Amino acid sequence: MINQKKMYRTDLAIDEVENIENNNQTEGSLYEKLSYNGIPTYRLVVDDKTGELIDKKKGIYYTIDLTKNNYHDYKESEEIEKGVSLVLKELLEEHGLTRKKCLVVGLGNDNVTPDALGPYVLDHVIVTRHLFTDQTVSDKYSEVSGITPGVMGNTGIETYDIIKSVVNSIDVDYLIVVDALASSSITRINRTIQITDTGISPGSGVGNKRKELSYETIGIPVIAIGVPTVVDFVTITTEVIDLVLRYLSGSMKNELKSNFLSKEPLENDLHLLKNPPEEVKNYFLGEIGKLSGEERLALINQAITDNGYNLMVTPKDVDMEIEDLSKIIAMSINMALHEHK
Amino acid sequence: MINQKKMYRTDLAIDEVENIENNNQTEGSLYEKLSYNGIPTYRLVVDDKTGELIDKKKGIYYTIDLTKNNYHDYKESEEIEKGVSLVLKELLEEHGLTRKKCLVVGLGNDNVTPDALGPYVLDHVIVTRHLFTDQTVSDKYSEVSGITPGVMGNTGIETYDIIKSVVNSIDVDYLIVVDALASSSITRINRTIQITDTGISPGSGVGNKRKELSYETIGIPVIAIGVPTVVDFVTITTEVIDLVLRYLSGSMKNELKSNFLSKEPLENDLHLLKNPPEEVKNYFLGEIGKLSGEERLALINQAITDNGYNLMVTPKDVDMEIEDLSKIIAMSINMALHEHK
Amino acid sequence: MINQKKMYRTDLAIDEVENIENNNQTEGSLYEKLSYNGIPTYRLVVDDKTGELIDKKKGIYYTIDLTKNNYHDYKESEEIEKGVSLVLKELLEEHGLTRKKCLVVGLGNDNVTPDALGPYVLDHVIVTRHLFTDQTVSDKYSEVSGITPGVMGNTGIETYDIIKSVVNSIDVDYLIVVDALASSSITRINRTIQITDTGISPGSGVGNKRKELSYETIGIPVIAIGVPTVVDFVTITTEVIDLVLRYLSGSMKNELKSNFLSKEPLENDLHLLKNPPEEVKNYFLGEIGKLSGEERLALINQAITDNGYNLMVTPKDVDMEIEDLSKIIAMSINMALHEHK
Amino acid sequence: MINQKKMYRTDLAIDEVENIENNNQTEGSLYEKLSYNGIPTYRLVVDDKTGELIDKKKGIYYTIDLTKNNYHDYKESEEIEKGVSLVLKELLEEHGLTRKKCLVVGLGNDNVTPDALGPYVLDHVIVTRHLFTDQTVSDKYSEVSGITPGVMGNTGIETYDIIKSVVNSIDVDYLIVVDALASSSITRINRTIQITDTGISPGSGVGNKRKELSYETIGIPVIAIGVPTVVDFVTITTEVIDLVLRYLSGSMKNELKSNFLSKEPLENDLHLLKNPPEEVKNYFLGEIGKLSGEERLALINQAITDNGYNLMVTPKDVDMEIEDLSKIIAMSINMALHEHK
Repeated sequence: MINQKKMYRTDLAIDEVENIENNNQTEGSLYEKLSYNGIPTYRLVVDDKTGELIDKKKGIYYTIDLTKNNYHDYKESEEIEKGVSLVLKELLEEHGLTRKKCLVVGLGNDNVTPDALGPYVLDHVIVTRHLFTDQTVSDKYSEVSGITPGVMGNTGIETYDIIKSVVNSIDVDYLIVVDALASSSITRINRTIQITDTGISPGSGVGNKRKELSYETIGIPVIAIGVPTVVDFVTITTEVIDLVLRYLSGSMKNELKSNFLSKEPLENDLHLLKNPPEEVKNYFLGEIGKLSGEERLALINQAITDNGYNLMVTPKDVDMEIEDLSKIIAMSINMALHEHK
Repeated sequence: MINQKKMYRTDLAIDEVENIENNNQTEGSLYEKLSYNGIPTYRLVVDDKTGELIDKKKGIYYTIDLTKNNYHDYKESEEIEKGVSLVLKELLEEHGLTRKKCLVVGLGNDNVTPDALGPYVLDHVIVTRHLFTDQTVSDKYSEVSGITPGVMGNTGIETYDIIKSVVNSIDVDYLIVVDALASSSITRINRTIQITDTGISPGSGVGNKRKELSYETIGIPVIAIGVPTVVDFVTITTEVIDLVLRYLSGSMKNELKSNFLSKEPLENDLHLLKNPPEEVKNYFLGEIGKLSGEERLALINQAITDNGYNLMVTPKDVDMEIEDLSKIIAMSINMALHEHK
Repeated sequence: MINQKKMYRTDLAIDEVENIENNNQTEGSLYEKLSYNGIPTYRLVVDDKTGELIDKKKGIYYTIDLTKNNYHDYKESEEIEKGVSLVLKELLEEHGLTRKKCLVVGLGNDNVTPDALGPYVLDHVIVTRHLFTDQTVSDKYSEVSGITPGVMGNTGIETYDIIKSVVNSIDVDYLIVVDALASSSITRINRTIQITDTGISPGSGVGNKRKELSYETIGIPVIAIGVPTVVDFVTITTEVIDLVLRYLSGSMKNELKSNFLSKEPLENDLHLLKNPPEEVKNYFLGEIGKLSGEERLALINQAITDNGYNLMVTPKDVDMEIEDLSKIIAMSINMALHEHK
Repeated sequence: MINQKKMYRTDLAIDEVENIENNNQTEGSLYEKLSYNGIPTYRLVVDDKTGELIDKKKGIYYTIDLTKNNYHDYKESEEIEKGVSLVLKELLEEHGLTRKKCLVVGLGNDNVTPDALGPYVLDHVIVTRHLFTDQTVSDKYSEVSGITPGVMGNTGIETYDIIKSVVNSIDVDYLIVVDALASSSITRINRTIQITDTGISPGSGVGNKRKELSYETIGIPVIAIGVPTVVDFVTITTEVIDLVLRYLSGSMKNELKSNFLSKEPLENDLHLLKNPPEEVKNYFLGEIGKLSGEERLALINQAITDNGYNLMVTPKDVDMEIEDLSKIIAMSINMALHEHK
């Protein structure tokens, strides 16, 4: 049997949940839809059972949805920052970490723009640890330090080893790690922030999974903040085929089946039609339509890999998007950790 | 009838030729396969008839194929530079432009990495025009000037207007314009250099087609050098569906039809199987398989556009790729225009 | 006779004025001290007589003094932007240019940080000209276009020629040109904004004076906005020797002459002591003290130039300073030209 | 008594030696003038006695002099790389470190160009440590890892603590640390490479001296490679006053005393005249001429500091200079550590 997990590359819990829901014709039962300062946010608590179902570690996952926001707008980005900082504060409180000593870790490679989110965030985080030695720091500030350990291809050292040794040599209560992720959904690229208390495996998004950073491996709580910045070619394609099928299902329901190439806009509710009925798939896609989602993905992966085509891709405007998102995340961290007015 | 040209976005003549060949079950009749300093290069002469067929302007198109080269390697990049300069020299000789006064134009936006090829190339081109005023320039150098006119979104001015007015105010015999392009084939992204004497429409690759720069509009010969750096989401998907069909055809020929998901590597010659026979398409893809390539593209485009998903994407390593390609093109121009040892 | 102008490199009218005042033992008679939104600003109207005195063109020069402001602070930079936009608005009104069609020109070389002010400003200016063609622009916006013509060393073309030809080909009422300047006073580097209606000679600050951009040469009004970003080695040194002399004069007045190396802080009012009396110079500096300011400068210049030491220098933190100043200037232009709330 | 060391800021042993020689009217006795691949290099062995004299740690200091080379030229930079790698190899052999496990540390702040030398070098160093785990590395490569620990202002952590903890957690035999330095001589800025086995104090060049990195503190040999990239304002000025005095002395010897402002080029050998005789100083500089070098420096420092003028400055072309120097140093390290042809 083909192992889907090897091919369907995502670091987002929400992707896994939606995938499960698509296959099971269920929806919405797993997460709460919330709003922080008006920013739509999904809160998902993974326990043993759902953890196995979606292949994710037990813990809390917040998915902040920016698909409706223009975060390049100055005013709007301020509102987003407030929303993200509220999520972060809530998670810190839940673990009793408010005002504790934090080390912020910017994972990734600052020479590869889609992988530079972590280092860029660190450029804007307010660090204070070196000021606490002489006791003159305003009590509005908590003790924060930060490092950008680089990537193993550039350092020759496991990222975990660098972080673990720094944690051992300084007095720190918890980590916030920031990293670029992969998503299986192109609509989420540079439009989603995931915050979780389960830690992270650096580089998993960009294809080089490294040793996990988590409470289990580091020995202190590890809060992970990630943004999906890349999608792989297999995933992007599979998603479009699904989209086409949903579209055709929608067309059928609107009795446009016979002339599905007409240009009239269709009133199809994608959410209702996420899982096209079998007869739609069979009718439109023939043998391929009879495959399960996993089998279809496996087929596409095999066809592509045989021809050496696989690639991680990123939107054309990645420079501006990463720059603006990194500022938003840094400001959110500053607001959550220090007492900003 | 659906207009394919609106959806199938490419600036490469070779993409159009392959598309035609795929549909017509013919191949290789339109271009010569050549080699310049060992670098494989396709030379395509478009006349009135083929021009209509592939919707390209009459003229000569060279397609330099770097899919087999590692241009990040220093030694290999030097060989590529020599090959590209030979192509450029040949084209200049054909038009009697050798040692004439050249204005090199770097089109695009240097703040958007996949669109920054032109400005980056200009950073490395040796300009000499300002030295010719006092007559002390070694005769190894020809008279070269250069500008980076920016993009209309940042200047408010048609790129054509800036270039035309500069050409009118200085004494120049021909233009070399360098720009980032779009391809419909993901394998060509950052792996192909197209050189043509037909000029260019700035921004066509990245989705904002502007007024053409060509002999017809500027009044002097316009040599265009382009690299496809982006592919749009519709195109990328259609290509994969075609790949899957070709793959399945290959599998069928190998009598692996019934278990096409097996993992054994297949000996399929893609070139022989570029156009899967109708029965393959029908069997595997059902109704969708019965569509022509254009109709399938139209369908995917409609499904995606209805949902606002369309995007231009670029490889994750675009920073390094554009940097290295821009150096290669600049060195080739320097070698072709000046007498380098 | 030694020609001071060859050595004493500055683009700031205020430098010239202070130099004159130092030599003439007069002060304050030439300019008004004003304040725009709380930002101290000197307004100097140069007529025929003062023009000859300070070797500057006739016109109005505003010198905005940021030595007391921390423009890296977000809130403070907003106040500065408002102040600068008020100065700019006043100057535009004076010439009847309010809401007229503007071309903003970013002079300089974006690969050399201290010379990149102009191109960086253009990155943040809101251009609108391309939107006016279809008449749907809100009347809050005036018609603005922008270009970054590059520097002659990189283009081979006189910057004047590029700008003049673009002005001729589009419909524009006036220019705003932005450039990095040189100052003779190290305290003004990256701490001063000069705005004038007299135009500019590109590159004069960084040592390659090019053809003037002004009403006389372009045929439409030319507003110039400049920031001194570099100082030359001769100038920096001469300034320090003057500082030492003023310091010693101050010490003398405080009867600390005999132990001038003591470390007690001195209550010396530099402005009162700008021109040390002759006996101070003679006593402390011997023969060199007997030289006039110009002769001392000439001597230092000769000593340095004989040894090939001359250099333009810039502060170590130039990256951040230019980045923040360019945003301030761009925002000021946007506020002055468009109706921002 | 005034403490010279607080004011006269330099990290170069050669600066200290020349300062001593100037004061003592001796020269050349302390270092050997050598040449590595044609690149002039001074080799200075500091023992207990000279160490006290020049306030430098005991050890070997190589000063590679690039004032006569154009390292922006591609061919010339290759020759320099070979020369520098020979120096480095010699020093490694002297300590029995050839082919041992090396950690290369890039000190400094990559957001501040004159301080970015270390991080930029790391971008080009070939790291191999992560490949040694599976034993398939060609024996042409030695085991190399690399980190860029950042600066305390951005991390909140002592740079020493980060490096020490990484050294403790991985198996490494010695360090090569690369950093930007300060010089007291403007002619050496971006024109000198110092290599020493005495280690380094990070940030000393740019004004924030941190805990020393050396065999004594880390427990393994520490080779330091540095380039002076900044000079402080006090130092730059004092150097010019000395230059003027030497120039005047030269003029006197040429019997040009009475008209020292004449423009004829003078045949003055600066090295013979490094220390102007007392009567020259007294005649030309009055009371200031009677001060010792240290006192003059103290006076200038006091005059400047009272007025808040002190600044670290760097040449205008620092971007290109640091970029090219960092490639040269990285290539030299690669050649010295791995068996490049």
